[in-house]
Amino acid sequence: MQHDHIQVLSLAALAQTRIHIHAIIIQSWWRSPGNSMTGEAPKVNEALWRALFRLAPRSEAPLQLQLRRILVAAILDGRLPPGSALPSSRDLAKILTISRNTVALAYRQLIDDDLIEARERIGYFTRTSDLAGSLAVNTLPSPQSGCPVWSERIIKRYSQQRNIRKPRNWHEYPYPFVYGQSDPTLFPLAEWRECSRAALAVLAVRDWSSDMIDGDDPLLIEQLQQRILPRRGIWANSNQIMITVGAQHALYLLAELLVGTGCLAGIEDPGYPDARNILEAHGAQLRTLSLPCGGLASESEFMELDMVYLTPSHQCPTSSTMEFTTREALLGIADRNDLIIIEDDYESELNFYGQATPALKSLDRSDRVIYIGSLSKTLAPGLRLGYIVAAPEVIFEARALRRLMLRHPPANNQRAAGLFLQLGYHDTLVRRLIGTFSSRAAILTEALNTHLSEFSFSPVNGGSSLWVKGPVTLDARRLANAAERVGVLIEPGDVFFHVPGAVCPYFRVGFSSIPAERIEPGIRRLASLIDGLI
Amino acid sequence: MQHDHIQVLSLAALAQTRIHIHAIIIQSWWRSPGNSMTGEAPKVNEALWRALFRLAPRSEAPLQLQLRRILVAAILDGRLPPGSALPSSRDLAKILTISRNTVALAYRQLIDDDLIEARERIGYFTRTSDLAGSLAVNTLPSPQSGCPVWSERIIKRYSQQRNIRKPRNWHEYPYPFVYGQSDPTLFPLAEWRECSRAALAVLAVRDWSSDMIDGDDPLLIEQLQQRILPRRGIWANSNQIMITVGAQHALYLLAELLVGTGCLAGIEDPGYPDARNILEAHGAQLRTLSLPCGGLASESEFMELDMVYLTPSHQCPTSSTMEFTTREALLGIADRNDLIIIEDDYESELNFYGQATPALKSLDRSDRVIYIGSLSKTLAPGLRLGYIVAAPEVIFEARALRRLMLRHPPANNQRAAGLFLQLGYHDTLVRRLIGTFSSRAAILTEALNTHLSEFSFSPVNGGSSLWVKGPVTLDARRLANAAERVGVLIEPGDVFFHVPGAVCPYFRVGFSSIPAERIEPGIRRLASLIDGLI
Repeated sequence: MQHDHIQVLSLAALAQTRIHIHAIIIQSWWRSPGNSMTGEAPKVNEALWRALFRLAPRSEAPLQLQLRRILVAAILDGRLPPGSALPSSRDLAKILTISRNTVALAYRQLIDDDLIEARERIGYFTRTSDLAGSLAVNTLPSPQSGCPVWSERIIKRYSQQRNIRKPRNWHEYPYPFVYGQSDPTLFPLAEWRECSRAALAVLAVRDWSSDMIDGDDPLLIEQLQQRILPRRGIWANSNQIMITVGAQHALYLLAELLVGTGCLAGIEDPGYPDARNILEAHGAQLRTLSLPCGGLASESEFMELDMVYLTPSHQCPTSSTMEFTTREALLGIADRNDLIIIEDDYESELNFYGQATPALKSLDRSDRVIYIGSLSKTLAPGLRLGYIVAAPEVIFEARALRRLMLRHPPANNQRAAGLFLQLGYHDTLVRRLIGTFSSRAAILTEALNTHLSEFSFSPVNGGSSLWVKGPVTLDARRLANAAERVGVLIEPGDVFFHVPGAVCPYFRVGFSSIPAERIEPGIRRLASLIDGLI
Repeated sequence: MQHDHIQVLSLAALAQTRIHIHAIIIQSWWRSPGNSMTGEAPKVNEALWRALFRLAPRSEAPLQLQLRRILVAAILDGRLPPGSALPSSRDLAKILTISRNTVALAYRQLIDDDLIEARERIGYFTRTSDLAGSLAVNTLPSPQSGCPVWSERIIKRYSQQRNIRKPRNWHEYPYPFVYGQSDPTLFPLAEWRECSRAALAVLAVRDWSSDMIDGDDPLLIEQLQQRILPRRGIWANSNQIMITVGAQHALYLLAELLVGTGCLAGIEDPGYPDARNILEAHGAQLRTLSLPCGGLASESEFMELDMVYLTPSHQCPTSSTMEFTTREALLGIADRNDLIIIEDDYESELNFYGQATPALKSLDRSDRVIYIGSLSKTLAPGLRLGYIVAAPEVIFEARALRRLMLRHPPANNQRAAGLFLQLGYHDTLVRRLIGTFSSRAAILTEALNTHLSEFSFSPVNGGSSLWVKGPVTLDARRLANAAERVGVLIEPGDVFFHVPGAVCPYFRVGFSSIPAERIEPGIRRLASLIDGLI
């Protein structure tokens, strides 16, 4: 659990706190990196100390002050964790080829400052007590002048985009109704281990260890062709498929290739915030489509568009499935208006009742649908494996761009995933997920009907979340904030809308990560907050 | 070895040829996907056949013709490999809910066309003979009309950039003096297996299976801080480091953040083609620096620049190392002119003699150096692991961009690499690579001096390649082409120059992939071609 906790700390938090983790390793490293293996007595790792002090040569401050500043910085930022042994003043003087007296003076001052301590007949150590509070600001190394003004140099500030935010430590909350995160108990551990092991056979390593330039693992491509895509009604040649670092990467690549300033792109509203962000970042002008409000309103709203981005299988965030007749009508419109359709086949595998509706791409006779798929939602989001299916010309250019951007998604994971599909494990996994998620969905539906009867939502037929609408006076963001304080995580809906209103009564309730037995108590707790908020 | 071969076939080649690999799997899949596990008798996989024929509904051609077109396409593109069993006409008619007569008619025509055969009392099968040559073009499905004109829709054509090209099947050549590819015999198989296994422990999987949003594995960050960066003289906090999908991805991200139209960027000439391509793709105007020709020519060439991209450790492609005094002078110039420096710390670990020169970043007092490192060159290019070290403001925005682009590099590989560093295996690996590469370099030097004594090159002190200059009349591209025909792969140098001359006498000779005993025979064979070419 300790580790679990570490993993989800934000990096900003890591930077602010000291790194206590693995402090022992750091300490032994400062003495002698090899001692754990050779058993030799710890000695000062000269190269490391020399490297630490290489920072200084251009300063004009007295040597003793420079020394002290470097040590203070190293202690404060955790490079020298509490209790680290320092070299003796004689050793450090020798390493740095400076006078021993200079080192001794610096050490004495640091002892006075309560930063290090001398242990008799042993040597100098950084203090084991927590230092963060005890330091006066003027002990810190002076800020360097002449740094670039980064706010002027960074021309695009992606951090300013509106985005879904969820606490990094979501799994420490008792009721995490978060979306898009995995439940570790559902991960196919034994099967993935077997495939990872097989991908580490000598011949397999020979395949994936090379730079594949713009290529992919042929096994994974072939398995997608034969196992995954046919279920969506898609028959693709290998020159129509490319692997990506997750589905989002697929969309980013397509935007780089196809979206320029002034490109008119139609989006769902509410819709996937990152799609909106990616298209806008590439200069697209967005037009919201009336699609999700039931069928196609009129062809006129498509006439000026260059492309549309859609999530027909389980619409993000509503989880509704586009009907077959709507799909056919949409393709007709696309043909007549020469529209490109980007189909993000969101959670297409997770259908609780009967067969999935075939993908838009499967009905596309003019190769204008570009299909995005993912293995992240079923296998593990952390693996980042997605794919694009499109006309060969598009894939050809996408490969050239991907080559320039990052060459290829890691080839060892491609091979392991290929084997996972080949052995039929993905089919089994999908069946298991459907079983688990559909029973969670039933419990959630029941709980919502019981505790939040004045709230509305569409009946769930698949996916891993419910889109809930509260009374019009509900501010779902306030509700989410209040809920977070009592251990319940829901996702306020405003971020999914292209132009958010002042108050948004919608929120998303995910059930891919929360255990079944926590669902009812979580919704009950959520319901207890409502009175004060509507 | 068969697999080996498959891995390196280009995707274009795969698409043109039939996929013979795993044909048996495909065949059994068409019958019954579960039979290998359950042992049940093969039966027709209805869903797959139905999905295959879903393509057709919008066509107005006679049903029988539609059926035939789909089957022909599936046979030709390898979805139905030679010898595949087809459903009986009765079964297929039932699956598609069409008349049995229609199917029978279609099958009969396909038999006449020599595409399928009827085996008495067994059923219909695709022909086992090679079909590619025997088909008249008019048997092919007619091309669909109304497709988007992709050449007009794709706004950026990255495939047109000048780039290093090497045959995908480079390891089938007897003398592969290619650069940047790994030698599978040097991969630390046992150690990497151990780390992969450890990364598959239950608690570890819990860490990496989640979507880390904009985060990285804290263990890998920490190990870079403590094991890798200090050797380069760099002490970084965790908010100054971000993991990337290889070093090239790092540069791409930085270009997205920092390079806009008209940005003036200084580059080395000759230099790394992909750096040039990435900067140009983001709108930079490139200025070649006179740097590599010995020291700093003058400060004036830097005065107008916004940034410079440099490979100080082992310059690409010359492998020369920038001297310490040059580094200090350069940082002074950067400070005075408020330049951003992107330092690509190319192969910094591979030094044959003594300690590496500290990175530019280690001497940087004003946080204007952005450092790019990689684990690909030592561990395996196919793993795609790189990192950026920069000011916290830069890393903060780089994380927001990376989140939008692909979230994070696969987290399981981050964990395995973190463990690999933590266990000290990377140190051992680097020592082994240095030993192997330095002896290969010595053999190569000897061979060049013996067989190509009129050619010149700088003495090699590290890295994994030599930059060779032939007589001025030599066209290295012609030499490389001639050499390839006799099994010797070298890399012609023109692509490394910003403005290539008509004839370029330079070429690069890599030694990271060629076994020691092949070096001398390979150079001898190369030398035998020279007479006709100068």
